[in-house]
Amino acid sequence: MVTRLHNFNAGPAALPLAVLEKAQAELLNYHGLGLSILEMSHRSTAFDDLMTQVDEDMRQLMGIPNNYKILFLQGGASLQFDMLSLNLLPKQGSADYLVNGVWGKKAAQEARKLGNVRVAASSENTNFDRLPNLSQTEFDPQAAYLHFTSNETIQGNQWAEEPKTPPGVPLVCDMSSDILSRPIEISKYGLIYAGAQKNAGPSGVTLVIIRDDLLERIPQNLPAMLDYRLLAEKGSLYNTPPSFSIYMLGLVLNWLLGLGGLKEIAKLNAKKADLVYQAIDQSDGYYRGYAQPECRSLMNVTFRLASTGLENSFVEAAAKEGLIGLKGHRSVGGLRASIYNACPVEAVEALVEFMADFHCRQGKVGRT
Amino acid sequence: MVTRLHNFNAGPAALPLAVLEKAQAELLNYHGLGLSILEMSHRSTAFDDLMTQVDEDMRQLMGIPNNYKILFLQGGASLQFDMLSLNLLPKQGSADYLVNGVWGKKAAQEARKLGNVRVAASSENTNFDRLPNLSQTEFDPQAAYLHFTSNETIQGNQWAEEPKTPPGVPLVCDMSSDILSRPIEISKYGLIYAGAQKNAGPSGVTLVIIRDDLLERIPQNLPAMLDYRLLAEKGSLYNTPPSFSIYMLGLVLNWLLGLGGLKEIAKLNAKKADLVYQAIDQSDGYYRGYAQPECRSLMNVTFRLASTGLENSFVEAAAKEGLIGLKGHRSVGGLRASIYNACPVEAVEALVEFMADFHCRQGKVGRT
Repeated sequence: MVTRLHNFNAGPAALPLAVLEKAQAELLNYHGLGLSILEMSHRSTAFDDLMTQVDEDMRQLMGIPNNYKILFLQGGASLQFDMLSLNLLPKQGSADYLVNGVWGKKAAQEARKLGNVRVAASSENTNFDRLPNLSQTEFDPQAAYLHFTSNETIQGNQWAEEPKTPPGVPLVCDMSSDILSRPIEISKYGLIYAGAQKNAGPSGVTLVIIRDDLLERIPQNLPAMLDYRLLAEKGSLYNTPPSFSIYMLGLVLNWLLGLGGLKEIAKLNAKKADLVYQAIDQSDGYYRGYAQPECRSLMNVTFRLASTGLENSFVEAAAKEGLIGLKGHRSVGGLRASIYNACPVEAVEALVEFMADFHCRQGKVGRT
Repeated sequence: MVTRLHNFNAGPAALPLAVLEKAQAELLNYHGLGLSILEMSHRSTAFDDLMTQVDEDMRQLMGIPNNYKILFLQGGASLQFDMLSLNLLPKQGSADYLVNGVWGKKAAQEARKLGNVRVAASSENTNFDRLPNLSQTEFDPQAAYLHFTSNETIQGNQWAEEPKTPPGVPLVCDMSSDILSRPIEISKYGLIYAGAQKNAGPSGVTLVIIRDDLLERIPQNLPAMLDYRLLAEKGSLYNTPPSFSIYMLGLVLNWLLGLGGLKEIAKLNAKKADLVYQAIDQSDGYYRGYAQPECRSLMNVTFRLASTGLENSFVEAAAKEGLIGLKGHRSVGGLRASIYNACPVEAVEALVEFMADFHCRQGKVGRT
């Protein structure tokens, strides 16, 4: 009997137990074929079937229309920062970025190495505790695309809905930390990318969803592994794919379908987030939420205590109770509970209970 | 009881059964820590320890000196084709390529997208059935580097030893399909790269071994995920690594150490190759080796039968006996047995027996 920890890691993050058990059960013998999925040729019929199924399940879950391609790539969102501008930002053009956290800032910095980038709006002046104010933002109607980060894992803020773009400007989104966590309307987007290791599977595979007409804008003769059009033409099999990560993604998609899809998981996610934010808001200021209430992330709950010392005690005491991954990102400190799809309600309930206990105990210590 | 097939896939390829069993046993609970390696933060102590161990084991097995860095990247050898020229081929410079197969040709083609590439020698005029003739080759003494492919998986030829480079020209090698298969002298190389999915583990991780002085030649401000220097500075953790593939690589390294290291595996590999080539050479021309005898690969044995129809029959009949992956690469046809490190002697013995049986049976069919 394995005692599973309550895992609040920001990514790689918790995976559904049922998914891990399935992977374990067939690790030596995939579908009774006499070899492991880890040993299987990516040109085999069985792997081809797997890729087709993963593509279909993604389309079904996210409602992805036929005029979009889904790519299964490598290198994480960080490589997408560059591929994006290499593929979709012409030399004479300019791209707009909305920056509401560390990842959006990095995305803009990387893209700038290869093209003209304009930060249309940023909330850096308040340390990304909120989204940029769009009512005061002037968008470039000629922009090659408008980029935003739907959920910032480090600061814990999230767009409840997409920013409106000027007509004809494709919306591009780094959806690494909230893809598959709620229904979205794909047709609003030109391109979505996401590292899988938060909501969609283990690390090692990166999802790109791209509208067909954007593929036609891509310049000729790009490096093969950085060329969306070529990778799309080859069905993500230009070279050997990260097979096992794609297989695990497939198991996660299957698990989501079994739960009833994104509407259902979104309800669960809202419930989990509500539990933690209530614990924060009802602590009389003992726990202080980092992100402003109107843009709080349902995926990464960021909060602080009165001192770094107390925060360290919190992390240590939580680990002793089997709650791990609660330290904030090293770049900003504080505390963070990442409660992605696969983090069970029970884990969140254990966290909320621990928060109350810790408050109570430390409060008493403070009074003696 | 799992019946394992005899797996001659060219990559992803067979993995050691002991490695798969170990991965399966601890898939839900890595080192008793209460979570899967698939769920573990890449910033955790446990993952840090894993990275350190993999680095140490690679150094021990391959005899990698301290003035080389080992990088664990993504994108396969195909992305290295571009990263190489982006990092090490200055705009005013030129690089020399020795081309003895499809992969070397692709490497040169890709590099040419980003810099000046000269094919110093090629054996394409004999369809890569041999290595280029170096005695007639003029090397560029000013070349930024000299690139070769130590083993061509598709044509099945292999360099028994490294080509000699002009003084001061760094030797660069795509070692995807024979890394870890035999001892080599690292100090002869400036840079070695290899996709893991043949001899070193599953797909999803790419090894780069680079000499420190080359890191200093790299231009400023490259895209972060394509910048060897930055990735080296960050210990391959600039962003989330392909954790599971690195973990599996670690298990494979451990298995190799347990066998006695590269000298021992090289003996086994020579024995396995010898068995198959003998079966070919002693078949009175029924089986015909593709690569010339003096450069035959110990990893990928390529051979032909008298007709494509007969080859298809061979592949089908073999599959019925549980021998899979024997079809030649789609670009050249024919037959191929990939007998990497993890392909057991027993599998090769089964193959050789099958080859004799098939010859005998078809010979009789031919006479009726």
